[in-house]
Amino acid sequence: MAHLTGESIIGFESGGEGEPSIFGVNPTTGESLQPGYAAVSGTELDRAVELAAEASGVFGKTSGAERAAFLRRIADNIEAVGDDLVKRAPEETGLPEGRIRMETGRTCGQLRLFASVAEEGSWVDARIDHADPAREPVPKADVRSMERPLGPVAVFCASNFPLAFSVAGGDTASAFAAGCPVVVKAHQSHPGTAELVGQAVSAAVRDCGLPEGTFSLLYGPGRETGSALVRHPAIKAAGFTGSRAGGQALMKLAAERPEPIPFYAEMSSINPVFILPGLLAERTEQLAAGLHGSLTLGVGQFCTNPGLMIVDGTADLEPFVVQLAGLVAGSPGATMLNPGIHDAYGSGTDALGRNAAVETVALGQAGEGPCQAGAALYRTSADAFLNDASLGTELFGPSTLLVTYDGTDKMLALARLLEGQLTATVHGTEADLEANRELFDVIEGKVGRVVVNGFPTGVEVCPAMVHGGPFPATSDGRSTSVGTRAIHRFTRAVCYQGYPDYILPAELREANPLGIRRLVDGEPS
Amino acid sequence: MAHLTGESIIGFESGGEGEPSIFGVNPTTGESLQPGYAAVSGTELDRAVELAAEASGVFGKTSGAERAAFLRRIADNIEAVGDDLVKRAPEETGLPEGRIRMETGRTCGQLRLFASVAEEGSWVDARIDHADPAREPVPKADVRSMERPLGPVAVFCASNFPLAFSVAGGDTASAFAAGCPVVVKAHQSHPGTAELVGQAVSAAVRDCGLPEGTFSLLYGPGRETGSALVRHPAIKAAGFTGSRAGGQALMKLAAERPEPIPFYAEMSSINPVFILPGLLAERTEQLAAGLHGSLTLGVGQFCTNPGLMIVDGTADLEPFVVQLAGLVAGSPGATMLNPGIHDAYGSGTDALGRNAAVETVALGQAGEGPCQAGAALYRTSADAFLNDASLGTELFGPSTLLVTYDGTDKMLALARLLEGQLTATVHGTEADLEANRELFDVIEGKVGRVVVNGFPTGVEVCPAMVHGGPFPATSDGRSTSVGTRAIHRFTRAVCYQGYPDYILPAELREANPLGIRRLVDGEPS
Repeated sequence: MAHLTGESIIGFESGGEGEPSIFGVNPTTGESLQPGYAAVSGTELDRAVELAAEASGVFGKTSGAERAAFLRRIADNIEAVGDDLVKRAPEETGLPEGRIRMETGRTCGQLRLFASVAEEGSWVDARIDHADPAREPVPKADVRSMERPLGPVAVFCASNFPLAFSVAGGDTASAFAAGCPVVVKAHQSHPGTAELVGQAVSAAVRDCGLPEGTFSLLYGPGRETGSALVRHPAIKAAGFTGSRAGGQALMKLAAERPEPIPFYAEMSSINPVFILPGLLAERTEQLAAGLHGSLTLGVGQFCTNPGLMIVDGTADLEPFVVQLAGLVAGSPGATMLNPGIHDAYGSGTDALGRNAAVETVALGQAGEGPCQAGAALYRTSADAFLNDASLGTELFGPSTLLVTYDGTDKMLALARLLEGQLTATVHGTEADLEANRELFDVIEGKVGRVVVNGFPTGVEVCPAMVHGGPFPATSDGRSTSVGTRAIHRFTRAVCYQGYPDYILPAELREANPLGIRRLVDGEPS
Repeated sequence: MAHLTGESIIGFESGGEGEPSIFGVNPTTGESLQPGYAAVSGTELDRAVELAAEASGVFGKTSGAERAAFLRRIADNIEAVGDDLVKRAPEETGLPEGRIRMETGRTCGQLRLFASVAEEGSWVDARIDHADPAREPVPKADVRSMERPLGPVAVFCASNFPLAFSVAGGDTASAFAAGCPVVVKAHQSHPGTAELVGQAVSAAVRDCGLPEGTFSLLYGPGRETGSALVRHPAIKAAGFTGSRAGGQALMKLAAERPEPIPFYAEMSSINPVFILPGLLAERTEQLAAGLHGSLTLGVGQFCTNPGLMIVDGTADLEPFVVQLAGLVAGSPGATMLNPGIHDAYGSGTDALGRNAAVETVALGQAGEGPCQAGAALYRTSADAFLNDASLGTELFGPSTLLVTYDGTDKMLALARLLEGQLTATVHGTEADLEANRELFDVIEGKVGRVVVNGFPTGVEVCPAMVHGGPFPATSDGRSTSVGTRAIHRFTRAVCYQGYPDYILPAELREANPLGIRRLVDGEPS
């Protein structure tokens, strides 16, 4: 096991030397894990951000090849501590070893995907409009532009993805690929995992000869350390994955700064699944099995978890409900990530159970232990759902609410009522889909991703992915936190007019020394 | 002269039938112009936005070819009232006929540029990642994505560009190209010009058979009508060009909505010009003449007006200062856009004149009349500038402040102190530029566009242009309001997973029926 120091990483130094106050807790046993981590002081936080600001000039001017080497080195370094991660992360999160191995693979794959994007280089959207000194009535100047990094980025780790959305997750990978230094705030739910990955990143900074401020990892309470980070004048953007309350509080801080900054929060989504009647009749069993798998995957602790299923109540529903209820009732209990999430799931399911308009269809088993949770299936009517906003709020965990409607108009009314979502799913035969074109129009305006005859969990890391969506799914529906488009969250276009060739960035020089795709006088070249 | 009705345009109907309260004023004479315009009622505003929301589904699904035809028809219709515009706009704005003809040309050119972008179609950034059902451990789904319109956009007209940044200006052109209906709030400084253009747009909506909510034009006071527009739940984004105070007030409203929306404000910029000593000595006369021309163009009422000139005080400055002072003193007075802008320019120049740390080097002539302004040249030291934040705030009009520094460190300190700007300019010989690489690094982080050996005014409408910049130059430094990238302000990527080909948008169908450039399995095709 790599040595855990219990300290923050501030450039090439360590910090947080006060009294340890943050301890990982094994959710299965409730036992506290060593070492403890002290919260960083305000001075230490300032130092990390100032180092990042200093590093910004140098790191922002590294070539795509240099950034690619850095990202690949991070992936190699993480893989080198893979055995430590599968030992420590399950202790802190209750997630099984296999999941941690898969998530490590996904995280390293994501780092290498961004390495290839940085290395290939065309992502900068280089544009060249040549001068025309003879133009009348006024000559045309030479104008060139490309995407450039915003500067130091704050990244907040997520509890539910200790690797893929944490220290070296998608936000960090895309910020590094864009040329932005990163200051990470560790999640208190998996401090040891964070340190293992933080050491891997920090070693890569040294290995690649980059300035020390390129990366820091800070421990501390969200309200103090997180807020101070978002408010720091040298932080130029932030990425967050977590609760709606936490995300909205930080959104507000980001907007109220003397210089407001882009704040990318992925917050809240119930991921409606519309099951159209033809398919419901045709594939009852596969549908129930698939939805049950998606619902209970990772103890329902995915932001794309299907929390709402919308079905035609006039169809013959019972075979499907019986099937799904049986699967839910037979689901073994499992360990949730931490007591906070477990308690929230408990109160949420209790409230649904007490709601007179909601029927408890099936409850899975919950094992013995402090953070055990069982799956749950509830049912209500479209009218009850339309009249009770609480039924449309996210309940994080393996629970879903089946809403039955009576007529297409009611289904469309439901769709129109929904808040912004990461995903919506439609299950239908060809005839179902043809008959429900309007449903696609409505949901396209509400979500980042529409899934047909599939399941919302399992977010593919690929160029076309959009893991985003209108508020409150995220703070900024124009962005995605997964897929190669994520790099654009941390850049802005800068225009160079009348520059002599030799002081232009390589991407914009006349000879195109990097061989990237560019738009020259409006034409691709 | 086309008939001016004095009424708002609400879809295919007219509105604002109350008592006329908004009158154009001839700034040269102070006389009030007919007709008067009534402010829209809350009900009328709601109706315009609701029509836009209804139109959104249909207009958002029009093809690029249909949007191109619409944009070109708008341009044709505007050109058809060109003679009316050069009669009415100068009366309302004090701008000369030649300027209005040029701005009409620019506006129509901009509409046609966005028409060609929409028609060509590749701007949607279509991406396709094919399925791989055989992949282990889990199959890969078919994932496709492209940019889609956000929905109804509110556009605020600018006083200083009655055509190019008003009813059918860049915000409207880019929103239409993206597929978003537009609700424009007219500027009270040129209500007749706004109506002439509004009629041209409205006729194009009918000519092209588009839904009536595609376009509305509302009259009303900024505080009420403008605020209500930004707060309306069906408005999904807004574009604004105007003052910092106005922009920041609306930014706040946009961020505080239950569903926050993107708000693009172009607000405030002093556009520093760094004049390096080699060039100052070599091209004294051309430099003074060029800067004077840029400074006084359009009575200094451009957002890229050079309000700050930074020069090496240890160089032999006097020939340049004498030259520039002579040109400023000899500048004829000219009419500003309206009494508000004229009064602000008067108090701003008065304050500079009274500032003990500032020398009044030259004042141009101010003619007789209510809105006459003369050019002004002031001078101060770097230390005084660094110690008095008021000297760094925008003074809208033909005034500039020459700041002398003593040593490169002081120049860099000045550059680092600057707030976000639309532009910065560097004048230098090859040796000057080589010796000041660090200056480029500093200013690149502060501005949207860097100009070398040119002048900041004259924003080219072309694919590579960036007319944006970090706060407070704009509310969102990631965007541009000029150039083809502006279309992306009003879109977000939507992802389609597992779709049968026949329900995909044409841009994403396997056969690529539109022949657009796409990223297929990570490779351009």
